[in-house]
Amino acid sequence: MALTDEAIAKLRGMIASGELQPGARLPPEQQLATQIGLSRSGVREAVKVLESARVLDVRRGDGTYVTSLSPGLLLEGLGVAVELLRDDTLLEVMEVRRMLEPVATGVATLRMTTVQLAELSRILDDMGAAAGDAEKLIEYDTAFHHVITASTGNETLTSLLDGLSTRTLRARVWRGLIEGNAADRTIDEHRAIYLALLARDPALVHAAALVHVNTSEAWLRTVIGAAPALNERDRPL
Amino acid sequence: MALTDEAIAKLRGMIASGELQPGARLPPEQQLATQIGLSRSGVREAVKVLESARVLDVRRGDGTYVTSLSPGLLLEGLGVAVELLRDDTLLEVMEVRRMLEPVATGVATLRMTTVQLAELSRILDDMGAAAGDAEKLIEYDTAFHHVITASTGNETLTSLLDGLSTRTLRARVWRGLIEGNAADRTIDEHRAIYLALLARDPALVHAAALVHVNTSEAWLRTVIGAAPALNERDRPL
Repeated sequence: MALTDEAIAKLRGMIASGELQPGARLPPEQQLATQIGLSRSGVREAVKVLESARVLDVRRGDGTYVTSLSPGLLLEGLGVAVELLRDDTLLEVMEVRRMLEPVATGVATLRMTTVQLAELSRILDDMGAAAGDAEKLIEYDTAFHHVITASTGNETLTSLLDGLSTRTLRARVWRGLIEGNAADRTIDEHRAIYLALLARDPALVHAAALVHVNTSEAWLRTVIGAAPALNERDRPL
Repeated sequence: MALTDEAIAKLRGMIASGELQPGARLPPEQQLATQIGLSRSGVREAVKVLESARVLDVRRGDGTYVTSLSPGLLLEGLGVAVELLRDDTLLEVMEVRRMLEPVATGVATLRMTTVQLAELSRILDDMGAAAGDAEKLIEYDTAFHHVITASTGNETLTSLLDGLSTRTLRARVWRGLIEGNAADRTIDEHRAIYLALLARDPALVHAAALVHVNTSEAWLRTVIGAAPALNERDRPL
């Protein structure tokens, strides 16, 4: 891996320094290998790793290009990494969401358009009609929170929160909710967030989002069989 | 890439399902290729990509192992990705830090040990003595914030905040601070965070951390030549 690592570092350096701009086409493999003083096979492997990290885009029969380097592409790997975390670590992920989501939702209060508010209202109707259908509830849940984070206009934030709220994690929480007959209460929590956003009340939005992420955390604990958090100790589970 | 992607997905799936546990040794390449029904070269490339993502550890002359899958390893790629973000996107990163750092620092209030508080005090002394030495200031700044986030005991949070506060980003902010003769004021902001932590006052800690990240953001804007944020419009820069 040593030579590949060196080739990766050199290619990253050329991109970070601006020598290779977003969208730029890389020189042919042989030329690139000569330029950075490494073997063709080292360069080839480095390109594969950087393609997987969405830094490079290999177009068959055309060439290899630097991607747009947008946060959405570069941070795509976060969700993939989170999917591989062990159960005990998922509670750490939940704690990060507890810290970040309420503030992010509060920021959304000031930036959300009326069109986006209407979209949330539609998704809430769909949620209510989905009853015990876990697949649909997960889909609407994902859509609901994505509309909110996307409304901040911060693609880095959206990518991070999407990465921290993977489908597997959502599925585990919803499985607990449905088995515990708590789906309706959770849909009500989504409605509380929507109503606070509609009222353009940042403090209330923050509170509603914090209550909601706390419920998700409590159910995740139930599903993975962890001890309740300090603030959950007195709650009958 | 298609075949490699398929091999990556299959290996990830075996790890996510628990078929391959953290620390497990992978079967030899030929056997693995037969097992997942793909070519040896596809498997070899997949292993390289997963090694780069710190999911696998290739030990020469020994074998290929699944890593510990700890958040510290799996989220290492975040910092590498952030280093490649374009200037305009760095302001998005700063906004995420503005959302996350004050809350994370607030959580640290309740969990920080007296040993860690003493460490912060020592780092503050070092900062004061470093005067205009940018390299040292960046080093102490990194250490100061790392002690705080690590004190939360949440490795996922620590990895995310470390990834969002790359050395390059810090270096750019400190360059602005030193050129603008604002290093002393920034050291005072670190002291304000420390004193609030010492007083175990979460609301004050939150406020001090928010003021501090706002200063960093303002200087990053100056350095990359961006327009001031809304809340900075009336400030004489």
